[in-house]
Amino acid sequence: MDKLHVVKIGGNVIENREALLDFLTDFAALKGPKILVHGGGKEATQMAEKLGIKVQLIEGRRVTDAQNLEIITMLYAGKLNKTIVAQLQRLNCNSLGLTGADGNSILAKKRPPHPIDFGFVGDLTEVNHKLFQLLLKNGISPVCCALSHDGNGQLLNTNADTIAATVASSLAPYFEVHLNYCFEKNGVLKDLNDGSSLIQILDEALYHDLKSKGILHTGMLPKLHNCFLALKAGVTKVRIGNPKMITETVNCTQITN
Amino acid sequence: MDKLHVVKIGGNVIENREALLDFLTDFAALKGPKILVHGGGKEATQMAEKLGIKVQLIEGRRVTDAQNLEIITMLYAGKLNKTIVAQLQRLNCNSLGLTGADGNSILAKKRPPHPIDFGFVGDLTEVNHKLFQLLLKNGISPVCCALSHDGNGQLLNTNADTIAATVASSLAPYFEVHLNYCFEKNGVLKDLNDGSSLIQILDEALYHDLKSKGILHTGMLPKLHNCFLALKAGVTKVRIGNPKMITETVNCTQITN
Repeated sequence: MDKLHVVKIGGNVIENREALLDFLTDFAALKGPKILVHGGGKEATQMAEKLGIKVQLIEGRRVTDAQNLEIITMLYAGKLNKTIVAQLQRLNCNSLGLTGADGNSILAKKRPPHPIDFGFVGDLTEVNHKLFQLLLKNGISPVCCALSHDGNGQLLNTNADTIAATVASSLAPYFEVHLNYCFEKNGVLKDLNDGSSLIQILDEALYHDLKSKGILHTGMLPKLHNCFLALKAGVTKVRIGNPKMITETVNCTQITN
Repeated sequence: MDKLHVVKIGGNVIENREALLDFLTDFAALKGPKILVHGGGKEATQMAEKLGIKVQLIEGRRVTDAQNLEIITMLYAGKLNKTIVAQLQRLNCNSLGLTGADGNSILAKKRPPHPIDFGFVGDLTEVNHKLFQLLLKNGISPVCCALSHDGNGQLLNTNADTIAATVASSLAPYFEVHLNYCFEKNGVLKDLNDGSSLIQILDEALYHDLKSKGILHTGMLPKLHNCFLALKAGVTKVRIGNPKMITETVNCTQITN
């Protein structure tokens, strides 16, 4: 089976233009089939403020109302996705940007409004792996933003980590899939303020142990949950680390069963 | 050869949500391979105003500076393109949105800054007809917005009429191409205020005659120029009319050599 790289970059890489271009140079240099999934970053909040649109928070989490969904669609699927695709073309990486609606690539259900109504947020139901295979087979790298659709005309805001894990999982029967979560740290740290506390191998037993002791940063928990789901679905290798790990041998956290 | 419909819709259809949904229902019902090209509409100007970004005009034509290009990218490639694609999916038309950067589909050169610098505006140089053929062969309808790219990382604002004609022309060797320009009138009128002055057949001789007499509306001239170029490139049928013409037998203007 061919190796397939699925790489997810987070908001912090996206918000720094230099870091983004550095990353894209590395991504373009990756040999073989590859998929990029990108998050959104803080620009959506800034744009909402500029336009005088309120961002509602419930229990610290954003609610995606119709106006905020519009802003997210403009920024993630428009500005950000197309900036990335145009830069990858410059780097001789033939890429193509997708929301879940494009080519019916990623389907979701709107999250039920009870107990909390988070608005137009999608929980993934299906990946159109045939479309991804078609593009990859023709030398095209899909670039996915954090939007899915419900098949009934509605775009839905969707967690980019989950998109990366679900796309990777859907392609595991056809490729040896390597899933890479890139962010500003070198991997999962026991102590966020101590870079030397990097966990190099994190298996599910250790995960549960650290979680029960309250050692893992709460923001890391859903990401790790996605990692274990991907491994169970047949993804070969899952890593969390800084963007350099996709082309160089650097310290990072490998997630194992 | 298979018949291929290339349909362009203008700003006025896009600005009216009901008219847009009506049109998309008709487009989705069109049998066989098809491509949609959409313009932008006035929302970019409104958004620029909201964000306090100036729109510079030279000789009545807009200048696309970096900030306005960003707005265009957000609105055309983001909000508008993805709204259309999501709605077409609802109507069981598997579509996929493209800027010129996506899949390297539409290449252009930035217009030289002399005598007038219109900013980030592209003059088309090449259509990646293989990408369009790949998508069409797999039952996917491309939805193109009015953005091309220069292959060097730069997106460029590009006239949607020209994109439609150039994409249609590039596919003429492989399909029997029918090119339809849809707008709010029933076709080319001798008198803009008199719907009964519709020209049903407009050939190049009549075009030059009417043009020399100042009868044709100036906004119509570049559109007609594109029509004749498409016919010369081998496009089978070129029509200008209201959106209903793509599914019904209605009065419209057919352009002939």
